[in-house]
Order: sequence, then C-alpha cells, then structure tokens
Amino acid sequence: LDERALLAIVREVIGREQTLDDCAVMPFRDFWLVATTDMLHLTTDFPREMSDWQIGWMSAAVSLSDIAAMGACPWFMLLATGLDRPERLRGILNGARDCCVRYGAELVGGDLDHHDELTIVSTVIGKVERERVVKRSGSKIGDSLCVTGTLGCAGAALAGYHEFDHNLFEPQPRVEEGRKLGAAGVTSMMDISDGLALSLYDLSEANTCGYAVSSSRIPVPPGVPAEVAEECALYSGGDFELLFTCPPGRLQQIDIPFSVIGEVIPGPQVIIDGRVIEKRGFVHMWRDQGQ
Amino acid sequence: LDERALLAIVREVIGREQTLDDCAVMPFRDFWLVATTDMLHLTTDFPREMSDWQIGWMSAAVSLSDIAAMGACPWFMLLATGLDRPERLRGILNGARDCCVRYGAELVGGDLDHHDELTIVSTVIGKVERERVVKRSGSKIGDSLCVTGTLGCAGAALAGYHEFDHNLFEPQPRVEEGRKLGAAGVTSMMDISDGLALSLYDLSEANTCGYAVSSSRIPVPPGVPAEVAEECALYSGGDFELLFTCPPGRLQQIDIPFSVIGEVIPGPQVIIDGRVIEKRGFVHMWRDQGQ
Repeated sequence: LDERALLAIVREVIGREQTLDDCAVMPFRDFWLVATTDMLHLTTDFPREMSDWQIGWMSAAVSLSDIAAMGACPWFMLLATGLDRPERLRGILNGARDCCVRYGAELVGGDLDHHDELTIVSTVIGKVERERVVKRSGSKIGDSLCVTGTLGCAGAALAGYHEFDHNLFEPQPRVEEGRKLGAAGVTSMMDISDGLALSLYDLSEANTCGYAVSSSRIPVPPGVPAEVAEECALYSGGDFELLFTCPPGRLQQIDIPFSVIGEVIPGPQVIIDGRVIEKRGFVHMWRDQGQ
Repeated sequence: LDERALLAIVREVIGREQTLDDCAVMPFRDFWLVATTDMLHLTTDFPREMSDWQIGWMSAAVSLSDIAAMGACPWFMLLATGLDRPERLRGILNGARDCCVRYGAELVGGDLDHHDELTIVSTVIGKVERERVVKRSGSKIGDSLCVTGTLGCAGAALAGYHEFDHNLFEPQPRVEEGRKLGAAGVTSMMDISDGLALSLYDLSEANTCGYAVSSSRIPVPPGVPAEVAEECALYSGGDFELLFTCPPGRLQQIDIPFSVIGEVIPGPQVIIDGRVIEKRGFVHMWRDQGQ
C-alpha cells in the first residue's frame, strides 16, 4: 500500500471533496468553519537542533498555515502532546501558545500523554465569511500563478545555510496574507508545505488545468548558489508560503507583497521553463498527507 | 515532574478554567462550541485482541463521550492517524466513521502519517445551546449523585469476564443521554473514563463540595463476584458512563435510565459507606489527563 493507495482509502471512507483542501469545511449560517489537524513527531518532523519552544511553535504554525490557505481567521487550537520527557511540556506549550497569540488564535485545551517518541497533534478551527473562502479548486486558464514570500528558505537552512535557520525552526504562517488574498478574490489557494513542485501537482489535482512556471520569476533565498536555491524552492519543505491564482486584472487589488511566477494553462501538466516538473518533494521529512 | 506538576503547567499556560471540563468551550452567538482532543496509542490504550475497526471505533468514542458529558451534540470529527502498518487504515477509518455516524457526527478529515507505534488522535467539535450546557462545576449540597448504565463492565472484561468484551472493545458514548440530562437541568456532569473513584475526585476538584456514595446502590456487572465487581466499578477504566448531580426534585424529569448512587455533601471529601474512597484508577492503562 503506497501513499496513493492510502489516500484512495481515505477518500473512499470520508469522501473526495473534503480531502482536496487544506482544511475540512463546515457551512454554519453565514459563516464557514474550517478545521485542520496535523500530526508531527520527533524523528521525522523536528530537526534535532530545535528547542522545545520551537517545537511547540512549529506544531501550531503548520495548522495555522492550513487555516490561512483557506482565507480564514484562526479561532482556537487544541494540542495533544505525547511526551517522551515530561520536562519538555512547558517549552512546547509556551511555543504553541505564543504562535497562537501571534496569529489571533486561542490555545484552549488538549490532551497529555506519555509516548516513547515525542508526538504532537495540533488541531485548529477557523472562521471565514462564505464569500471570502478560497479553495484549492477554482484556478482559471489565463490566471496568474503567484506566491507570497521567498521559497526554499527552510530548505536552504537544511542544506547548511544557517542564516535561514529561523525559517526552518520558526515558520511564520501567512495568516494576514491569506485573509487579504481571500478579500481580493483570488481564485484558488493552498499553502506550500512540501515544496513548490508537489504543491503544484496537488493544485492541479484539485483543478482541471495545468500550471506553467518561469524559474527566473521564483523568489529564492538570497546569497545561496542558484542551483541550490532552485532545488530548495522546488523540492524542499517547511516554508509555508501561500500559492495562489488570480485573474491578471485583479492583481493590483492585492495589497501584500507577492510574486507572479507563471500562469494557469490548459491540460493537467505542470511545467517549468517548458519542461515537466519532477513530482518529488520533502514528503517523508515533512508530512505525508495533511489537511 | 509527576502528573500533578504537569497539570499545573498546563493550567499556568492555558488557564485553569478551560482545563476543568471534559471539553474546552467557546461561546459563539446563542450557541457554545465545545471541543475535545484525545491521544490514544497502541501499547497503553488498545488491548491486543482489538480489531482495527474496534480501534477506530474506540478512538472516536472517547472523544464523543467528552462531548456527551457537556450536554452537547457532536458535530464533526478530525482523525490524525499515525500508522505502524498501512493495511490498518481502512479498518480504523471505517470504525471511526461508523461510530461518528451512529452518534450524529461527521468524520470530515484528518492527517495521515507513519509512526513506529500506532497513534490516533481524535478531535471532536460539538454544539450546545447556551442554556443546556452542563459543566463539571455546579454540584449543590443536597443534590442526588447519579450515573447512567452499569459501572465496571469494561474492567470486568479486563478481569477475564469475556461476556463484557464488547463493553471494553466497543464503548458506547452516552450522547443521547447527555443531551437529555442537559435538557433536564442536571447541575454538573462528566464522563467516567478512569473509574468512579477518580471521576469523583475530579468532580470534587471542580466544585467546593464532596460526595457520599452507597456501595450497594452502584449498578455493577451482573454475574461477577461482588468484590471484583465493586473493584471494577470504582477503580477500572473504559466505561464512559455519565456521572451527574441533580436536585432530588428534578430527578423525575429525567427520561433515561439512571441510578442514584449517593449525594452531594459539604466539604471536599469523597466517601463510600462512610470511608474515604481511595484515589486510584486506570490512569496509566487509559488516559493520563484528557479533555
């Protein structure tokens, strides 16, 4: 049973629609609630140099990023913590709480357990006005393909460029940016947790179109050799920037910094400078399949 | 750092109020949302004889039981699954989904990961009308102390009385009962996940009163020697019945089966037949500190 087979089982049991987006969505009166849960554990998700505070921060950030990708406001978080060593608790909780406070969420509860391997599951519920929700589906041929921030910084840190360690250890979910993009009427959006290449393939799966990227337009970490920088931006995880599409005529309504890196094209292919992009990324280092 | 010290840290970081109940509560217009998350893993939570379907069912049931204990309606569930063997996925998801369907919730999403030890975190969000929410605090001196169902059945199964295996492997959260108890105006409520004794101490902590139990009034598993049955009811986990208090004059408004097992008394003590009840239970077999 490979990853694709596992996903097929998930879709069979809970329905395909709910598995296509960064969050599950529940219509509720004039609002939608959006909900996401992420399981992280020591050996595959937290580089050894991370402090407990950073582990808590990151656990919160990955879920807040999923909320951001829907154009939603984070509301509250639950944190289930399986501790390998009890003395880690304070640092982890403080890090998660500080990340929540920074992005307008409240850490309201959780569960506490002993676990041989440190395991943390963060769950965040957010709210979004019905007309501002952004899904992965919705890309239209001719839309501009855009990203927030710089891609590959976390990957550059992993590759030894330690000036980017803070990007790897203390990722900043694009919550305010997601809200503004939702308000500006972008047509589709997701967060980039496992590298641009895999995200483009995920986006393509939720749509019936393809994407064409110009490598020269991708914002990459400064001071890193061009080849390394492109490798990190395309195939490395941990950045949590937002990838979105927007009609060219609406781009100037977006009042946050962003970069146009390509456009939406017919057909399902994902190409860069005319070549098909390799479908690989940091799935095992980071997450296999998250919402 | 013992369990008490860990709980003190949790309360310092997220606030005492939110840690006293089975769920965190978020006021939302005329409703309250209630939210709970529970981490379960193979070595400490799932007896070896359980099927994958039962593991999924139980993972959902423990969280649904927390929702029930607030008098709330389950709404939706997220399930984060760290799989030791991928072929378990279908059974686990089916079990969780079937338990959700049975109790009116929807399994809407989750996360999927590899884990050396099978680890499942279920998160449930529920809704309750403001006037029907029941908290752990609210016991009044003179109230009757009551329980739903029979206590100690899951423990009897663990003790070798296999006619109760279904109670251990497929616990039934008291969702309908919790709703009716909320409507009837019971004064305080919680679920009994780690035995009656620990639950009474937890209830006492959230109140300023004590509880006096008559052992002869506790409904225990039939066909089990009296001593074993009482031991299981008081000190064994896995039953997920509801423990609640209610003014005697309001008992007849409760239209579900229940047993009066004692009353609310002044002072913080928890006593049975005039003696102080031992403060022990299945904390390590089951859960250390859950919401």
